[in-house]
Amino acid sequence: MSATYPRISKQLDDPETAREEGRRKIDWARQHMPILETLREEFEESSPFDEQRIGMAMHVEAKTAALVETLAAGGAEIAITGCNPLSTHDDVSAALDAQPNITSYAKHDISDQEYYDAIETVIAIEPTITVDDGGDLVFRIHDKHPDLIENIIGGCEETTTGVHRLRSMDADGALEYPVFAVNDTPMKRLFDNVHGTGESSLANIAMTTNLSFAGKTVVVAGYGDCGRGIAKKAAGQNAHVIVCEVDPRRALEAHMEGYEVMSMREAAPKGDVFITVTGNKDVITREDFEQMHDGVLLANAGHFDVEVNLDELSDLATNVSTVRDGVREYELQDGRRLNVLAEGRLVNLAGPLSLGHPVEVMDQSFGVQAVCVRELVGAHSTGLPDRLLSTIRNRIGQADGPRVVADRGYKAGVNEVPDALDREVASIKLDAEGITIDALTDEQDEYTNSWQHGT
Amino acid sequence: MSATYPRISKQLDDPETAREEGRRKIDWARQHMPILETLREEFEESSPFDEQRIGMAMHVEAKTAALVETLAAGGAEIAITGCNPLSTHDDVSAALDAQPNITSYAKHDISDQEYYDAIETVIAIEPTITVDDGGDLVFRIHDKHPDLIENIIGGCEETTTGVHRLRSMDADGALEYPVFAVNDTPMKRLFDNVHGTGESSLANIAMTTNLSFAGKTVVVAGYGDCGRGIAKKAAGQNAHVIVCEVDPRRALEAHMEGYEVMSMREAAPKGDVFITVTGNKDVITREDFEQMHDGVLLANAGHFDVEVNLDELSDLATNVSTVRDGVREYELQDGRRLNVLAEGRLVNLAGPLSLGHPVEVMDQSFGVQAVCVRELVGAHSTGLPDRLLSTIRNRIGQADGPRVVADRGYKAGVNEVPDALDREVASIKLDAEGITIDALTDEQDEYTNSWQHGT
Amino acid sequence: MSATYPRISKQLDDPETAREEGRRKIDWARQHMPILETLREEFEESSPFDEQRIGMAMHVEAKTAALVETLAAGGAEIAITGCNPLSTHDDVSAALDAQPNITSYAKHDISDQEYYDAIETVIAIEPTITVDDGGDLVFRIHDKHPDLIENIIGGCEETTTGVHRLRSMDADGALEYPVFAVNDTPMKRLFDNVHGTGESSLANIAMTTNLSFAGKTVVVAGYGDCGRGIAKKAAGQNAHVIVCEVDPRRALEAHMEGYEVMSMREAAPKGDVFITVTGNKDVITREDFEQMHDGVLLANAGHFDVEVNLDELSDLATNVSTVRDGVREYELQDGRRLNVLAEGRLVNLAGPLSLGHPVEVMDQSFGVQAVCVRELVGAHSTGLPDRLLSTIRNRIGQADGPRVVADRGYKAGVNEVPDALDREVASIKLDAEGITIDALTDEQDEYTNSWQHGT
Amino acid sequence: MSATYPRISKQLDDPETAREEGRRKIDWARQHMPILETLREEFEESSPFDEQRIGMAMHVEAKTAALVETLAAGGAEIAITGCNPLSTHDDVSAALDAQPNITSYAKHDISDQEYYDAIETVIAIEPTITVDDGGDLVFRIHDKHPDLIENIIGGCEETTTGVHRLRSMDADGALEYPVFAVNDTPMKRLFDNVHGTGESSLANIAMTTNLSFAGKTVVVAGYGDCGRGIAKKAAGQNAHVIVCEVDPRRALEAHMEGYEVMSMREAAPKGDVFITVTGNKDVITREDFEQMHDGVLLANAGHFDVEVNLDELSDLATNVSTVRDGVREYELQDGRRLNVLAEGRLVNLAGPLSLGHPVEVMDQSFGVQAVCVRELVGAHSTGLPDRLLSTIRNRIGQADGPRVVADRGYKAGVNEVPDALDREVASIKLDAEGITIDALTDEQDEYTNSWQHGT
Repeated sequence: MSATYPRISKQLDDPETAREEGRRKIDWARQHMPILETLREEFEESSPFDEQRIGMAMHVEAKTAALVETLAAGGAEIAITGCNPLSTHDDVSAALDAQPNITSYAKHDISDQEYYDAIETVIAIEPTITVDDGGDLVFRIHDKHPDLIENIIGGCEETTTGVHRLRSMDADGALEYPVFAVNDTPMKRLFDNVHGTGESSLANIAMTTNLSFAGKTVVVAGYGDCGRGIAKKAAGQNAHVIVCEVDPRRALEAHMEGYEVMSMREAAPKGDVFITVTGNKDVITREDFEQMHDGVLLANAGHFDVEVNLDELSDLATNVSTVRDGVREYELQDGRRLNVLAEGRLVNLAGPLSLGHPVEVMDQSFGVQAVCVRELVGAHSTGLPDRLLSTIRNRIGQADGPRVVADRGYKAGVNEVPDALDREVASIKLDAEGITIDALTDEQDEYTNSWQHGT
Repeated sequence: MSATYPRISKQLDDPETAREEGRRKIDWARQHMPILETLREEFEESSPFDEQRIGMAMHVEAKTAALVETLAAGGAEIAITGCNPLSTHDDVSAALDAQPNITSYAKHDISDQEYYDAIETVIAIEPTITVDDGGDLVFRIHDKHPDLIENIIGGCEETTTGVHRLRSMDADGALEYPVFAVNDTPMKRLFDNVHGTGESSLANIAMTTNLSFAGKTVVVAGYGDCGRGIAKKAAGQNAHVIVCEVDPRRALEAHMEGYEVMSMREAAPKGDVFITVTGNKDVITREDFEQMHDGVLLANAGHFDVEVNLDELSDLATNVSTVRDGVREYELQDGRRLNVLAEGRLVNLAGPLSLGHPVEVMDQSFGVQAVCVRELVGAHSTGLPDRLLSTIRNRIGQADGPRVVADRGYKAGVNEVPDALDREVASIKLDAEGITIDALTDEQDEYTNSWQHGT
Repeated sequence: MSATYPRISKQLDDPETAREEGRRKIDWARQHMPILETLREEFEESSPFDEQRIGMAMHVEAKTAALVETLAAGGAEIAITGCNPLSTHDDVSAALDAQPNITSYAKHDISDQEYYDAIETVIAIEPTITVDDGGDLVFRIHDKHPDLIENIIGGCEETTTGVHRLRSMDADGALEYPVFAVNDTPMKRLFDNVHGTGESSLANIAMTTNLSFAGKTVVVAGYGDCGRGIAKKAAGQNAHVIVCEVDPRRALEAHMEGYEVMSMREAAPKGDVFITVTGNKDVITREDFEQMHDGVLLANAGHFDVEVNLDELSDLATNVSTVRDGVREYELQDGRRLNVLAEGRLVNLAGPLSLGHPVEVMDQSFGVQAVCVRELVGAHSTGLPDRLLSTIRNRIGQADGPRVVADRGYKAGVNEVPDALDREVASIKLDAEGITIDALTDEQDEYTNSWQHGT
Repeated sequence: MSATYPRISKQLDDPETAREEGRRKIDWARQHMPILETLREEFEESSPFDEQRIGMAMHVEAKTAALVETLAAGGAEIAITGCNPLSTHDDVSAALDAQPNITSYAKHDISDQEYYDAIETVIAIEPTITVDDGGDLVFRIHDKHPDLIENIIGGCEETTTGVHRLRSMDADGALEYPVFAVNDTPMKRLFDNVHGTGESSLANIAMTTNLSFAGKTVVVAGYGDCGRGIAKKAAGQNAHVIVCEVDPRRALEAHMEGYEVMSMREAAPKGDVFITVTGNKDVITREDFEQMHDGVLLANAGHFDVEVNLDELSDLATNVSTVRDGVREYELQDGRRLNVLAEGRLVNLAGPLSLGHPVEVMDQSFGVQAVCVRELVGAHSTGLPDRLLSTIRNRIGQADGPRVVADRGYKAGVNEVPDALDREVASIKLDAEGITIDALTDEQDEYTNSWQHGT
């Protein structure tokens, strides 16, 4: 397609090499994304997106590329740009852009103006579907191109922040087409939070510091899904885990798991590694820093860099220096050294060695994206084996497989992802892993219903 | 009070000894029920139940007795009978009955007629509050004594079955006073299911069979809360765990925990111990039995004894004999022996050595009962330390501590337990364990709200 | 055979019923002792003990009976009595005694005089082999019947205490025939200590008290094999584990596992359950009791009842009473109640519900006994599949399978069990579990040797 | 000192910057090596090495530098070079060389000739003590400078390979001064193998591949200390673990831990990640590759790159390419892709992101080095608190603290590290972690001895 925006692949010093390198990265991701591969094969056969133009604004790196190629395999024309200039891999962008149905306008480290220009260029394809990570596409369309809305079937939103913004729009009656809150599905949250954040946070800490966890006291602040994952995985590396929580029931859950539970003030002098995952601010503050021993590590795995109060830490410090890539050492008056990882930003994503979320986690999340896009066009699974369809039917009580709602049947606004779609993605993953599960017999189904709903 | 029903303590051969024995059992339970002890102290001081008559139909054994004594300490007059004739401990009944405000009509192994007579005698006190395990009191009152309803403030229901029956009544518009579904609270489910059922099932199996779990393959059918608890605790005893599930997402969760996941048909020849916790029927059937190896154990930890299909197993067997207390051996034609524990009934409750649910689990469940009864009379916490009240307030956003609703403010029908009450019980437990947790500062509270609810 | 000692089975009120009951118990044990069953089949075919008379003094209960029947299947004539009057099950004794080649003289709760009379009656068969648990047979023979020694091929000793006594004899040059220290083999220690003691201690505590471990602080004193097992299994039940040790390296190992490590004095106010497994005395003393909180459990899983200093606890207590079977409550002046389980004796063996060591653990230990007896008569494995023999050969570097030494080739004194026999038992167990393992190729074998022994 | 060998720090383009960077790395290591810091303080005060010249050939990187500086603090003059040209960090070398008592001749990626020249230059200081990693110094001295031996007090050897070579010399009567086999001490093996190799292998795999372990089937070949660590830590990341072993008893141990145990042939089609830690060759071969599924990872954590047979894999492959740093993909005829990490070399040390062993692990290993050097000069602990000395004394039964043998009291040849020294290092670590452990009372000590040694 024609595009006035200067496409990245045209500008690279050696576009051929970049494309090859990007291809290599994408292939590695695809090798480990069995859900998307299954869906890609289905889409190649059924071509559900033949008439569609999909506009996307997401982190342009290898895992996202696998989603793009999956949707393209279903016949869509796709235009994509980044949702954050710093997360773009130019080589991946080039490899995407080299393909017939796909145009990529993402470029690493561009200016704000270029960033919005690129979004405009994506919008210029007049998308029938939008796929967002943060909501920028949806906002821009509503703000600047309201005329396009009547031809937009719907959208998907990947993140907490985006869903939050869309809900605000929705509450004001300002969201004029349906958007699936992919962020909120169990398939995204359960695995991303517990396993993805848990494992990648610890691996990043270990590899950034050359330290190990065995025998360390790890203080986990926040016992939501992410905190549970970190606590569990840290204990699985033979750390001694202390949990801090403000919710008494969650605190009791942590206690009943066998962790020590106490206030941050009490934990401060005991911890060797502190990991905040509360979603709140000022979780570790001056009074805590004053109690910590020499050499502790301070890391954040919650959304923003406000959980460890770095301003107060700076005030306390007599000297601050970067002692390793990704490690800032704050030296206190008495010589104690507190080490902040990744400048208090997400340690699993912002660390110097970080590769972002593990591939399998994004496979699950993007698998939900792919079936949601399919759902928006009113198509349903054609590739799922009969056995799986039957399992989902049995469980969901539907006659027609996981397809739930007819074309355009969704209301304008934020829509929950139909649970059957979420379960379909789980089924695809199980199938890809070669796992067979039981299906309810009719008698069992009846027994369950009679018991649950009264006789 | 006068009672025509022949009270058990009057009939015992040696009532004095029985009372002492019952007292000993109750004291043991109370020694390990810190939540009830805390509430008992609060109630003794504030006397919230001075005007109340509480009718109860519950398992009359030591842990229930601790609840009875807690409520009595608050000034209530209490009449209690069993909710199942076989679960009554006569000595505990006698010890309860010996106290000034308490009359116990429960008796072990009585006839159906006597059972209903006893319920009638409880109703004869004209209760202002009912506390049920299974709903018999509520039904009887609605059915035979509707005139009492206008003086009944409300009730509490302990079990799944009872809540299920009450919801059916409610759906028909037939439930004429408010009843709290104590069964459904997080404090009951999370700990009872995961930890209580998990630990007690395995301990009962080990002690009934003299076998150990290390190196055994344990097949857990059903990966709900109970199944998770059993799987986790079995792995914690170094068993190799296989999970069978019909829900693809739960199956995937089990897979991501590291368990093997497969169909029961595939698991049948691999397992050494099979534990069903599905809530469904025919989970293990003829085709499975035919594949099992010699010496396997078959146990059920789900509600009813229909999970392992004993009819089909009997058909297959050439000989059936009791080889140990609590173990029925089914010998098949080819000599293989399959061992069914506790006749396929709840292995943690119906086994020959069973003492019922662990004490701490019932402390949590009955703690919720006690605060719900207090809530019904419109009272609120007077005993909770300011610090705890503040924590709950901060979290719940209430000005007045955990008390939520004024006297009689609940609608007739099944009511959810207010979350603040459930959290109050969690707080009491943490306090009793000497655990301090953090409280949100005003700034943090504001930050959370701004983020969650939009700006 | 003729025997002047009044055999128990002749005296039972209803010997037929007792025999049946004993048979039932033995059959249950045999159903879960695959190692002994494999060896029994081998012995039935090869009859290695045709000329032998085996005298045994062991705990006469179901698991031991399986060993007795295994040896009898090999053609031996066997006379057995107990090694402790309180551990004898009269019904098992009767069932054994009912068999052609076996005479059992064990009887529950007999006097000291009767106990020694019974040993004498066993010796009266003029054993060619002795199998002891504690060494009483060996001592009695050396002391009173030295003339029999010249016809005794050798013996086996099951326990630490017995081996200890025999080593003392040996050091004095007083042990005049070879005895295998079965107690010291890896197959006995690794599994018995870590898994057997670990699981059975916790299950006994749970079932005796009706309490659970989740969220409890369990203090384990002693981090040897048994302590490791208890700590690991308690953590596996979601307890918070504190380890006390006197050896700095073991303490550091516990620390690196993620457990808290501290002195008993520091642990005393923190623990909910205390389990001693040090093999030493006075592990918990007055100063510790004074710091403990109300309701703690005190249990011992070490050899003797001196680990918890009950004398000092009695001195502190103002009242002592039995509050449940197996639980003595010591009430202190300030009202705190400390609960001692099983009177401070081995909680997994002396508790009111105890069934002794788990069946599988004894299968491994008695499997070593059986191959040791076979070794003493100079026989070797005939029943082991070629594949297994080859595995052991490869590993051990022997040409002829696990048989190591010719008939009577062992020196008088305490002999270590040849490692090949211990591994044979491991191989039999793996085979019985249907597990195939790799065997070294010749090239790998050579590679290993070249590397280990120099070139 | 004069040195003809061109010292690296003189050659750097910007030696000042290099020194600063090296200093930063060393300081980070020292911040997390409390054992060496404790010993450094002791040595600074007691100056045990005032007369000594220490020659060292070790990996010249930050952790080793901490050992060098610890020994230098005790008054020694030190000359060091690398033991492998590729492991040298030039900046660390420069930072060491900048110090008064220390000369470093190590240089990254030098030629063989330069490597041996550097060793010669170290020898030129006429060392009184040698500290080796691989034995090169000892061999060179014996081979080329036998005249120096009479003035050498002794040496220390860090690695398996070095100890193996020294034992060969010793067996030939050719080792003419005492060398401590530091490699063989419990403090090195237990923690390095189980925790160090376990954690660092998994973290390197995760960060090299961007994959996670939850739900993966990890096949661990070899169940020695390293294999146990990897299996345990992988299970702790929610992997499903399969163990392959050739030793039946180890295989049974793995089975009793709850792992699946099978032959590599059976595991090949089930595994997602294969990690070899056998110390043998040809652990995974052609027949296994043929069964593996698309996308598996093959990694080695055993000593040499012969465990995965890469020759056979190359033969099978139709295409081999580097798909990521540290990942070689072997594509088979049918399109399956097998990914070999770190070219089959030690995945935790040779991976592209590797930082070598975790700092804490080297602290323990080098702590033993430091006390062994002190032992060689006949000095003993002066810095250990009385309490710790008393603990070690109590445990070891020595009157004079951990010093065991007088100056030069060790025989020429390979010497085991005295256990008291190993325990001293454990004590120092516990102390640095703020952990207090119990000490045996005299009565307990006597009880233990009486029981162990007979009465």
